[in-house]
Amino acid sequence: MIIVLKPGASQEQLDHIVSKVHELGLKTMISQGVERTIIGVIGEEDILRITPLEVFPGVEKVLPVLKPYKLVSREFKPESTVVAVKGVRIGSRSIQIAAGPCAVENREMLFATAKAVKAAGAGMIRGGAFKPRTSPYTFQGLGEEGLKYLREVSDATGMPAVTECMDPRDVALVESYADIIQVGARNMQNITLLRELGQVKKPILLKRGMMSTVKELLMSAEYILSNGNFNVILCERGIRTFEDATRNTLDLSMVPLVKRLSHLPVFVDPSHGTGVRELIEPMSIAAIAAGADGLIIEVHINPEAALSDGAQSLTPDEFARLMKGLAPVAKAVGRELQ
Amino acid sequence: MIIVLKPGASQEQLDHIVSKVHELGLKTMISQGVERTIIGVIGEEDILRITPLEVFPGVEKVLPVLKPYKLVSREFKPESTVVAVKGVRIGSRSIQIAAGPCAVENREMLFATAKAVKAAGAGMIRGGAFKPRTSPYTFQGLGEEGLKYLREVSDATGMPAVTECMDPRDVALVESYADIIQVGARNMQNITLLRELGQVKKPILLKRGMMSTVKELLMSAEYILSNGNFNVILCERGIRTFEDATRNTLDLSMVPLVKRLSHLPVFVDPSHGTGVRELIEPMSIAAIAAGADGLIIEVHINPEAALSDGAQSLTPDEFARLMKGLAPVAKAVGRELQ
Amino acid sequence: MIIVLKPGASQEQLDHIVSKVHELGLKTMISQGVERTIIGVIGEEDILRITPLEVFPGVEKVLPVLKPYKLVSREFKPESTVVAVKGVRIGSRSIQIAAGPCAVENREMLFATAKAVKAAGAGMIRGGAFKPRTSPYTFQGLGEEGLKYLREVSDATGMPAVTECMDPRDVALVESYADIIQVGARNMQNITLLRELGQVKKPILLKRGMMSTVKELLMSAEYILSNGNFNVILCERGIRTFEDATRNTLDLSMVPLVKRLSHLPVFVDPSHGTGVRELIEPMSIAAIAAGADGLIIEVHINPEAALSDGAQSLTPDEFARLMKGLAPVAKAVGRELQ
Amino acid sequence: MIIVLKPGASQEQLDHIVSKVHELGLKTMISQGVERTIIGVIGEEDILRITPLEVFPGVEKVLPVLKPYKLVSREFKPESTVVAVKGVRIGSRSIQIAAGPCAVENREMLFATAKAVKAAGAGMIRGGAFKPRTSPYTFQGLGEEGLKYLREVSDATGMPAVTECMDPRDVALVESYADIIQVGARNMQNITLLRELGQVKKPILLKRGMMSTVKELLMSAEYILSNGNFNVILCERGIRTFEDATRNTLDLSMVPLVKRLSHLPVFVDPSHGTGVRELIEPMSIAAIAAGADGLIIEVHINPEAALSDGAQSLTPDEFARLMKGLAPVAKAVGRELQ
Repeated sequence: MIIVLKPGASQEQLDHIVSKVHELGLKTMISQGVERTIIGVIGEEDILRITPLEVFPGVEKVLPVLKPYKLVSREFKPESTVVAVKGVRIGSRSIQIAAGPCAVENREMLFATAKAVKAAGAGMIRGGAFKPRTSPYTFQGLGEEGLKYLREVSDATGMPAVTECMDPRDVALVESYADIIQVGARNMQNITLLRELGQVKKPILLKRGMMSTVKELLMSAEYILSNGNFNVILCERGIRTFEDATRNTLDLSMVPLVKRLSHLPVFVDPSHGTGVRELIEPMSIAAIAAGADGLIIEVHINPEAALSDGAQSLTPDEFARLMKGLAPVAKAVGRELQ
Repeated sequence: MIIVLKPGASQEQLDHIVSKVHELGLKTMISQGVERTIIGVIGEEDILRITPLEVFPGVEKVLPVLKPYKLVSREFKPESTVVAVKGVRIGSRSIQIAAGPCAVENREMLFATAKAVKAAGAGMIRGGAFKPRTSPYTFQGLGEEGLKYLREVSDATGMPAVTECMDPRDVALVESYADIIQVGARNMQNITLLRELGQVKKPILLKRGMMSTVKELLMSAEYILSNGNFNVILCERGIRTFEDATRNTLDLSMVPLVKRLSHLPVFVDPSHGTGVRELIEPMSIAAIAAGADGLIIEVHINPEAALSDGAQSLTPDEFARLMKGLAPVAKAVGRELQ
Repeated sequence: MIIVLKPGASQEQLDHIVSKVHELGLKTMISQGVERTIIGVIGEEDILRITPLEVFPGVEKVLPVLKPYKLVSREFKPESTVVAVKGVRIGSRSIQIAAGPCAVENREMLFATAKAVKAAGAGMIRGGAFKPRTSPYTFQGLGEEGLKYLREVSDATGMPAVTECMDPRDVALVESYADIIQVGARNMQNITLLRELGQVKKPILLKRGMMSTVKELLMSAEYILSNGNFNVILCERGIRTFEDATRNTLDLSMVPLVKRLSHLPVFVDPSHGTGVRELIEPMSIAAIAAGADGLIIEVHINPEAALSDGAQSLTPDEFARLMKGLAPVAKAVGRELQ
Repeated sequence: MIIVLKPGASQEQLDHIVSKVHELGLKTMISQGVERTIIGVIGEEDILRITPLEVFPGVEKVLPVLKPYKLVSREFKPESTVVAVKGVRIGSRSIQIAAGPCAVENREMLFATAKAVKAAGAGMIRGGAFKPRTSPYTFQGLGEEGLKYLREVSDATGMPAVTECMDPRDVALVESYADIIQVGARNMQNITLLRELGQVKKPILLKRGMMSTVKELLMSAEYILSNGNFNVILCERGIRTFEDATRNTLDLSMVPLVKRLSHLPVFVDPSHGTGVRELIEPMSIAAIAAGADGLIIEVHINPEAALSDGAQSLTPDEFARLMKGLAPVAKAVGRELQ
């Protein structure tokens, strides 16, 4: 940590800060420049996190040197994490695709969609039983009934099921049905939920908040890992910007960036990331080209009848075409579609 | 709702859409222009919300005409809501100030701060017992112990207590101690929490998410009202933008905007909104000038020792000066400090 | 400047960087911590600006310590700059209001509007002769004819005239007619224009780009000052964010922030800053409360007939009401309307 | 265009608006719903652009139906534009790569870099002679001397030269040396520059502003086309968002989006788009996978000695590796590296 003093900071102020840092068991190194005095702090930076040094008289700013996360970092664990679920190895050389409806609406629709996406090459089924909708007046999901259908279809097809949990009280329930528990973008900083999920055995798919930095995404994952669950898959799903021609701005640069900073696998959700049906195929291909370990895509057997996000759902035919386009690009970047 | 067709949309596509709209019990009005055909839909727009019209062949875009919220709107309730808590009337002619530490750290600190802010003219005490921190390695709050101190200091000073609830399982607990329950910015779209708070008797202070539009803030309030609790205070606390000279960008324009769109009172939090101690006083004054009904401000008896947000906490002296500056401006805009 | 090395940086890499810094005539101070080595650089930081230290092997990041601007800073000139134009003293205790149409459309409209805003208390007339429109198919301004009308109305009313220059080839022309030359938001980083305006005698009103940080605004001002013209007025006019309920997000926090960082006067443009007619009055009042030295407001004698920005233009009556609301707030914050 | 009236709009207000629309030679279609009255306007929408309908009493909002650009749209010209420069066909099946230093610093450096990028497979040389720097105290380019070196190296290697023009007074000068004239992000809405470039014979590479929407980029291109120059290449170079782990957020979704909306070729600049050397290779590959027609990449023979943007410049070796990675992905999406 580096403490930069104001131009006119007094010797007394300098002494006050230095003695405070020493009290905490840390060492200092003072560098008196022409215009500014700088204090380098040596030792465990964490100790300083709880001390509001910016508030001390004479301090202009405080520059942290170390990253605020540990367990999720590649420095902590250099080899890439592979999350294995019923034979699906996420984060391996093999690209994994989860597909299915935004929301589980009924048994028939779910089975028909699952059969179609499996035929096209998907390895996992996705579908929401609990939906965090912006409006209280729209479809909020089937709840446990939806979870049951998901379990059923997963068992029938052999595809692991991914579904969202949005309430800390539902964690045990969702865990009992799902193979991978999803944290939605709106809940990326729902700390109580993250803590519960850290105590679960099932892998977590953690979606980036629509206005969260990569650092904050890693900090949220750190909550889960530090509570005991190391099976976390990160997921880019678009961030909020001024551009309104797409629903969100899909930040693909985060894929190679996160792969450098962290050992955790990274998925991309081009459905929410663009919100525009025609853009899902090219952005899926681009995501794999950028190094993503997998995709999560909304597919509906009949988008016209979807109860949520119909406008960004692919038909099974569109999804099959996407999968065909994906294979040669996966190969071109040294990966493979399972 | 208005449906705009693509330039080359066929008569068959038009008929398909129109018959779907009629099936839902709505009327249509077709306008065939030189370049585009437009379908006006007449009737209860809500019915159409669950139908993904964008997905129908031939549709270019769908333009909603009505606002997606009802109970929070001024059209639903033209007169301004006044939230009354133990003699404090929020949303009345009188400006209300809640002040106190970011987190309740111990009993002594809280009492000393409360005494100081009351002397300076604050009408409510604020303080967090549960803290949703970005990092799992920082102080997370005292929990119920903090709530007890808050209740004690509130009873001793007569100032109603505002404190955050971040877990739907803690709602009853927090309600039993607090006078006003705060929803933090990170939980503005925590739907399960909002639903619980809709069933509570105590008023809710709902902070705008750092990534949320004014419309989404109103939709989140709609969750609370539609579950039965009409005592909601909205709170601007800065949004996330590209500007990094301040911690957030305080969007004061939302104050007069929300006062037009909704009957609910609006508070401003200049502490989180700027994150820069020197800017809190001028922005507090500007907030009142813009029409805010009150402020929530972080004050700490000894910011150097604060366990969180020390850098943006005012000392009691700074807060007292702020209150002195506030009074003439409140008067100049036809309001009064109680 | 502080250079942070990567965790595994070698002694050889450290030596290479240090020798490069010494070559430039600067001193270093090395601090070897538990996890990182840090190099403090002492001396004229400017010398290092052209050396891409981030690119040197072993370097993780480079943290600048000093601000990148000089002439515009309060450290360079502690007393506030007052820009005086024909008796109008911008940056003094007196609040100054420039009002008028977005574009000069014809002589009659301009004279009628000027008369009205003067009667309401405006001290300056504004109006565009050159309009940087997003679309090539909309009204682009009257050019020199518009400048002539502005000069005429300024002479007739005694109000100094503010108008935009958007082409470096037009600087001499605009200077010959205008009293204050405006740089529009889209041209804030039009470097060739800034350089020309640095050689002009007339004051410059420099609007913040909708995508520009406060630091970049100050850097653009630095271009003008470093070319010889110290009479610069900065102007906040809203930044672009995800919020679409207003045309831009008016960043009022920048007002007290810039007043601390710089000696230059700061104006606010609530017309472009909000783009919503009903919000102009409350945000004008809030701007003055936040410490702005003046406002620039769009007023049109007949907004229904305006050739540009009609939707955000006030009528003379609305403007007169705004001025009435402004006076007591100016007084409450220790200022006065002339 | 659709005009939505306020809930309580009177018959008189409706009549006033309708008569205004009829005056302009347009037809109306009125749809009176339960809560709102809507006026559909039929005819040439352009006529209405200059009429500020939002300002008419009773109007709540005005929704444009048609796109504001014409000449750049695919509806105007369905087949893709191929810009041909000295045998390089931009927008064809062949992917084109422009590479070279951020700024031309001297003759030797430029020749060495050009030779290296040509050997690695680049088809065009890039380099700035005029640099729009944020700070007046950094290297501003060699000016005409730089242009001469560019011409020389272009003639010697056979690679067309791309270079920026930032001043309307320099257009003829730059045109006399360059093969493709670049408009930088800061000048995307420099209207006077765009108009001049519309009268030029050489192709224009138009970079997206860092806070400009896709629609605004297309409108800026419309300025060039409507002034007579149809040889425009659009270029994504990252937009400004809250994320600060990368210099900008590269918006790759705009690539397939713009290819649908417009017939113009689209380039991507991963150097400015990420600002992080390690991310340039994966994002180059992703850009091609997303459908880009080419890339513009900063390469420097010795990044440690670069006078600008050294930190994001690739070495010739890194660039050669990137080109090797690019070829199989280009093939996988049905394209080829020349």
